[in-house]
Amino acid sequence: MYEVTAPQGQFFGKVFAFPVRVYYEDTDAGGIVYYANYLRFAERARTELIRVLGFCHNEGLEAEEKCGFTVRSCAIDYKLPAILDDVLTVTCEVTEAKGASAVMVQEVWRKDELLATVEVKLAYVNFVRKRPVRIPSELLDKLSSL
Amino acid sequence: MYEVTAPQGQFFGKVFAFPVRVYYEDTDAGGIVYYANYLRFAERARTELIRVLGFCHNEGLEAEEKCGFTVRSCAIDYKLPAILDDVLTVTCEVTEAKGASAVMVQEVWRKDELLATVEVKLAYVNFVRKRPVRIPSELLDKLSSL
Amino acid sequence: MYEVTAPQGQFFGKVFAFPVRVYYEDTDAGGIVYYANYLRFAERARTELIRVLGFCHNEGLEAEEKCGFTVRSCAIDYKLPAILDDVLTVTCEVTEAKGASAVMVQEVWRKDELLATVEVKLAYVNFVRKRPVRIPSELLDKLSSL
Amino acid sequence: MYEVTAPQGQFFGKVFAFPVRVYYEDTDAGGIVYYANYLRFAERARTELIRVLGFCHNEGLEAEEKCGFTVRSCAIDYKLPAILDDVLTVTCEVTEAKGASAVMVQEVWRKDELLATVEVKLAYVNFVRKRPVRIPSELLDKLSSL
Repeated sequence: MYEVTAPQGQFFGKVFAFPVRVYYEDTDAGGIVYYANYLRFAERARTELIRVLGFCHNEGLEAEEKCGFTVRSCAIDYKLPAILDDVLTVTCEVTEAKGASAVMVQEVWRKDELLATVEVKLAYVNFVRKRPVRIPSELLDKLSSL
Repeated sequence: MYEVTAPQGQFFGKVFAFPVRVYYEDTDAGGIVYYANYLRFAERARTELIRVLGFCHNEGLEAEEKCGFTVRSCAIDYKLPAILDDVLTVTCEVTEAKGASAVMVQEVWRKDELLATVEVKLAYVNFVRKRPVRIPSELLDKLSSL
Repeated sequence: MYEVTAPQGQFFGKVFAFPVRVYYEDTDAGGIVYYANYLRFAERARTELIRVLGFCHNEGLEAEEKCGFTVRSCAIDYKLPAILDDVLTVTCEVTEAKGASAVMVQEVWRKDELLATVEVKLAYVNFVRKRPVRIPSELLDKLSSL
Repeated sequence: MYEVTAPQGQFFGKVFAFPVRVYYEDTDAGGIVYYANYLRFAERARTELIRVLGFCHNEGLEAEEKCGFTVRSCAIDYKLPAILDDVLTVTCEVTEAKGASAVMVQEVWRKDELLATVEVKLAYVNFVRKRPVRIPSELLDKLSSL
């Protein structure tokens, strides 16, 4: 049918960078991107980083025991507002990954302006048993080798 | 800094096609894309069609008299659900454009499965004076020549 | 702890009415409620109508065979925009309910101004088997008697 | 027309508490409330706290110089997930307010279970001139006297 390609990010050294276009849906009546939406953008970049490594964000190695990362905490600093039609670069750097947890540091850029930083602490969990499990060694190896 | 490219669509004849990846933010507890979010996807495709024609969705020719398209009505048919991690193709075909109004017919595809159709009736309005105005002839010419 | 009451709607004759406050999250850079968000508001009112009848939107009578309404199609007319801080009344009237389907006509009001109308066609489906099933007679009786 | 009342929160000592019902729109394919949406809930409670004090979240004292609070940073801890149909209580306690800034500590409860905490640092800004201004003394007095 129509052959189009989903947006993909890429690594610049240890830093994964993913493009995000700002649409009306992302903005609010203040004329800027709504503060919660930076977390949507950040999650897209994390998902694509994991996908580029050959894993699906929300799949463990065995289908019947679905596993994946879940956010334990995050801290966001808003420095400058993004606005409608901006093309943003959302980065993701894995600064820690061991056992059942990982830390990712993310930034939102508009060209050479840093708009926001997001630090996310993640746990790897078995969604069926609802408890943390060790990150699969294959994935852990890749995250550690970035 | 990080050079990444925002996703772009392209024309296949008269039909503009734009890729959309489904993230957690788009889904709901039913495990599928939330029904309102197809309208977010549709608006992205309309915006990119206008952008490819050389116009900005929300800009008129004079900055002090900001103009743009606004949705008057829409009708959505849900045929099959989209799910997490899907890559969708959202199309947009301008079926009518004259005076201050336009009609766009849109479809949401996952490979060769048609998931949803959206028909949107738009008015071109002066956002400051809050009333319909004629579509600028430059834009109208491009819309009509598709 | 803190005793607060979730917002509830009520019937005015056959018409169920539910209040919705507009927050920043609902608006866009145009200064008005984003067009897809009327569907979020409409779904809240439908859910609360079903809840007032003693049913949970997403539960069938047997837990192991989860059933509920899903949207087949909808048509929205936008008449006047809602803005930040508005208190809206979202109505829901069941105009048809039989077999495995229902039709609900909804309106969005700001005091005595009609802002939007939404017509929704719903199917009652078994979410596990992914196919339409008859609306449980208990629920159907209540919907029919409105 | 239809007389319905928008949901309101109330103070329990220094702590303002506001009810939030979880709808499909708030959840994701993991079956739980999407992590960014806790920020939507938190903002609703902050807005209602300000409204109860007699101020409008996004209005200064003079209309031509629109002022209001904007989020500078926030930190969220996710302890337990909220799910569909939950009635949550979102609290807001002003722990600091002086000059052009304020700190609010917020919690999300489901009955007696603490699901999440959110700490928000806010700046009071003139949205037209895009710079911080002193919180109006009338509002500051009220915030300080809580």
